[in-house]
This record gives sequence, C-alpha cells and structure tokens, in this order.
Amino acid sequence: MKKTIKAGFVQTDPAFGEVEENVRIALREIKGLGAELLVLPELFSTGYQFCSMAEAMELAEEVPNGPTTEALLEASASSGTIIVAGILERSGDRLFNSSVLISPHGFVALYRKAHLFWREKNIFTPGDTPFEVFDVGGVKLAMMICFDWYFPEVARTLSLKGAEIICHPSNLVLPHCPAAMITRCLENRVYAITANRAGVEQRREGEPLRFIGQSQIVSPTGEVLYRAPAEGSDSAALEIRPSKARNKAPTRQNDIFKDRRKDLYRL
Amino acid sequence: MKKTIKAGFVQTDPAFGEVEENVRIALREIKGLGAELLVLPELFSTGYQFCSMAEAMELAEEVPNGPTTEALLEASASSGTIIVAGILERSGDRLFNSSVLISPHGFVALYRKAHLFWREKNIFTPGDTPFEVFDVGGVKLAMMICFDWYFPEVARTLSLKGAEIICHPSNLVLPHCPAAMITRCLENRVYAITANRAGVEQRREGEPLRFIGQSQIVSPTGEVLYRAPAEGSDSAALEIRPSKARNKAPTRQNDIFKDRRKDLYRL
Repeated sequence: MKKTIKAGFVQTDPAFGEVEENVRIALREIKGLGAELLVLPELFSTGYQFCSMAEAMELAEEVPNGPTTEALLEASASSGTIIVAGILERSGDRLFNSSVLISPHGFVALYRKAHLFWREKNIFTPGDTPFEVFDVGGVKLAMMICFDWYFPEVARTLSLKGAEIICHPSNLVLPHCPAAMITRCLENRVYAITANRAGVEQRREGEPLRFIGQSQIVSPTGEVLYRAPAEGSDSAALEIRPSKARNKAPTRQNDIFKDRRKDLYRL
Repeated sequence: MKKTIKAGFVQTDPAFGEVEENVRIALREIKGLGAELLVLPELFSTGYQFCSMAEAMELAEEVPNGPTTEALLEASASSGTIIVAGILERSGDRLFNSSVLISPHGFVALYRKAHLFWREKNIFTPGDTPFEVFDVGGVKLAMMICFDWYFPEVARTLSLKGAEIICHPSNLVLPHCPAAMITRCLENRVYAITANRAGVEQRREGEPLRFIGQSQIVSPTGEVLYRAPAEGSDSAALEIRPSKARNKAPTRQNDIFKDRRKDLYRL
C-alpha cells in the first residue's frame, strides 16, 4: 500500500434538475485534479430541494446501472481516481439519498443515507445499508451523508470498523458541521473529507436554501488541512497519510478505543 | 419546578497541595455569586499533578465524610447553591478522580471518572459508578469529568437518560475541548457547564502543565452563552432554562433521539 494518497473534494453549485451539466462540471474538475480519491457533494447531479416525490422520481436513477453512475465509472477508470458521490437513487418505487463508491476497477459500494433531515423525510426512504468500511487499494474508506454527522454513532461505528478516511458528501444548510467534523475526527482519530455544495436553491416560495460551502479535509488529530470558501465552487486535493488514522493514542498511556467503557455506556 | 435557574461555574487557579486555601477561595466565590447551581473544576481542592500515589494518598479524602465535602455541604446549605465539584477521593487503598453533587438539602451523588487521561492512570482507579442523572429540585443534573468529553458515549448516555445540564469539572490541557463541547451539546440538545482551572503546574522537571481555562456554559442549540478567559480566575452564572434541553427537534420533522438508527450502529 502506498504511504500517502492525494485526496480531496469537489465543491460545486449544481443547477437544479440540470443533471447532464452538473455531471459534466464535476467530471471536468475530477480530471483536472489528478487525485487518487475525490468526494463530490450529496445529490451532486440533481440538486437538493425536490418539491414532490414525483419530481424526484423523474430525476432519479438506478444504481449502478443509471447514466450518472456510468459516467462516474468511466471518469474513475480514465482518471485513476476513486470517487465518492451523492446520488438520487431509485429502487423500484422507493427513493434513497445515496452515495456511491467507485474505483478505477469498477463499482465498489452503495450507501443509503440513514438519518434524513427535515423535508427529506417526505421524499426518501431511510437508508437500509449497513455502515461499512471498504478496502480500496489498501486504503480503508467509509461513507456517510450530510446530516449523519449529527449522530456520533455513525462516525464511531465506521471508525470502530477500521475506517481511515470517512467520505462525507453533503448539502449543508446548518452552520455547525464544519466545526463538529473536527470533533468527529478527533474522537475517532480518523480523516474526514466533507464535500459540501455552495449556492442557493429556491424551489418553494419564500424559502431559499443557502448552502454553506466550507468543504474540508480534517486530519485524525483535528487539524483542518484545507477548508473551501463558504461561497462558490472550489476543489482541492492534498497528500494525506491514511495510516495516521490507525494511531488511536492521544497520549502514550491512552488508546481511545481500548479506553472505551462499554460496561458503563447505555446506548 | 422553576422555569429558569441561575447556573454557572467557578474557574480557579489552585495552588498544589494547599487544600484549605483552595477550598476557601472557591467557597468565597460560591457565596458571592448567589447562583442556584455552580460547577467547580476537577480536583479543585488539591491541584492536579501528583508525582506518586503516596503523595496523592496523603491529600485524598473520603467522600462524603472528608473535610472538603463537609465544607461544600455547609456552603451549599448556607448559600442555597447546588454544587458540583471535582475531588480527590480515597476509598480504602484506592484513589478515584471523582466529583460530588451536593444540594442545600444534603449529599446527592458521587461520580468517579471513567476515562483517565495520561499519567492519571498511574494514580487513579478507573471509575466504577454508572453514568446517572439526578433530579435536584426538578432539574435533571448529570456529571462527567474532563477527558470524559473525548468519548461521545458519555454525554450521549447521560442525555438519553434525561440529563438537562451536564456538569463537567475539568483540568484541561489539550486545546480542543471548548469547541468539542459545542458539538456534545448540539448532538444531544443538552446544556453543559465546563468548569476548568487556569494556571500552570510544574511538579516534574521540564514538564509544566498549562491549563487552558475557557470554562463555559453552552446551550442545547450550541450557543456559547459565556466563555471565561484562558488565563486567570473567573466565575459566572446566567439564567438558563433547563426545559429547553427537552426539545430534541432541530427541525419540525426531526427528533434526534427518535431518529437514531440503533439497528445500524455497531458500538
């Protein structure tokens, strides 16, 4: 396994419903970055605020056989970049707020968002996929989506299962996540790459949604290695050392996993 | 039950080993503040950095029959203030890094720190008391001590058990806790009062410990209602509304406890 990998995110400002154009812009960024791992935002191809389930159903795709996943597979193979991307998934008559993990060698995994935020509950079925870790070329990758950050059990479960990098496609509107992800990384001594979108969506009268940007790469010791601006598109990839996430010792006498007191927790 | 209570902390800079003087200063602050709930730092009466178990044993006291607990009981009764304070507890030939919860009506509870930091492991026995919530005059109080913040399971367990205010005596040296406690409050929609100490202790050659102060009161929606300076003594008490911690809804469609996916967590 390589000691370091160039990993990062693409922060976009997708136009609602303009799937082809949104995908085109994201793939252009992927090709330009020359990274080994890139994370795209939640629902990067469609936009976020569906007014009805019927509208969302129109824009949804099967995974892995839909055109967006196929375009990502092709981009991954040609660029050599592992891609994690949020996607509007159709499965029969259900919709999931999902993400895909794709390697240059093919499709790896699907994750369906477990914790739905606000009106997402009117559109999506809560996820039914387990919180899992995937070994891709010797790097242990995991996925969670946006509001999953609010629940410490998610990053904890993924880290206990051996995640080195948590890939976190997002469409954040609340202000707290960028700071909270520092806590998530520290308390689990794991990397996290949050790929947020920017821009404003106004699909209901009087209710513009302003996404907060600030996509970021955070280290297992809680350093913000890079944070994007709050507004506008941006992308970044840095050399990081996944093995750093295997060191669970904030001091010589502590191991944050061995120090857990499962005998006292009531969860 | 009253709708609001005046609650806060006393941030001190105790002199190592000067128990009488450290207690005297803390009690003077308690009397001056006229609060209904006050939190004192971890090990507020003794100082922090014991060079040996024998040295710590000399300074330790039984709880609730030791002189420091008795002084706190008297101060609580005379001032009408509920007090949470960190104390060096002796129990037979064992030492615990403990905290006491004392009401004007008497001794309520003892908590023994579950997660020991660094060289504390050379001195203390890991705590064996459960994470519990105590109803004191209609307010649901809970305790955790310093490094317990690092483990999300602690504040989670206490909040699931109904805590409205987490009282958090601390002797922080790492920089991350003040920001992380905002996450702890948000993810559980609970108040937290961190009472940290300030100052420097140098009890081993070449290893001064600098405590970071910044005691704070954080609301269930993640607002820092008051943060003390990094250096020097300080104390503060504000009117807060404990019932606010019973609202677990960041949106009309979310309840952060009902939204938990225990079926998917592996903790």
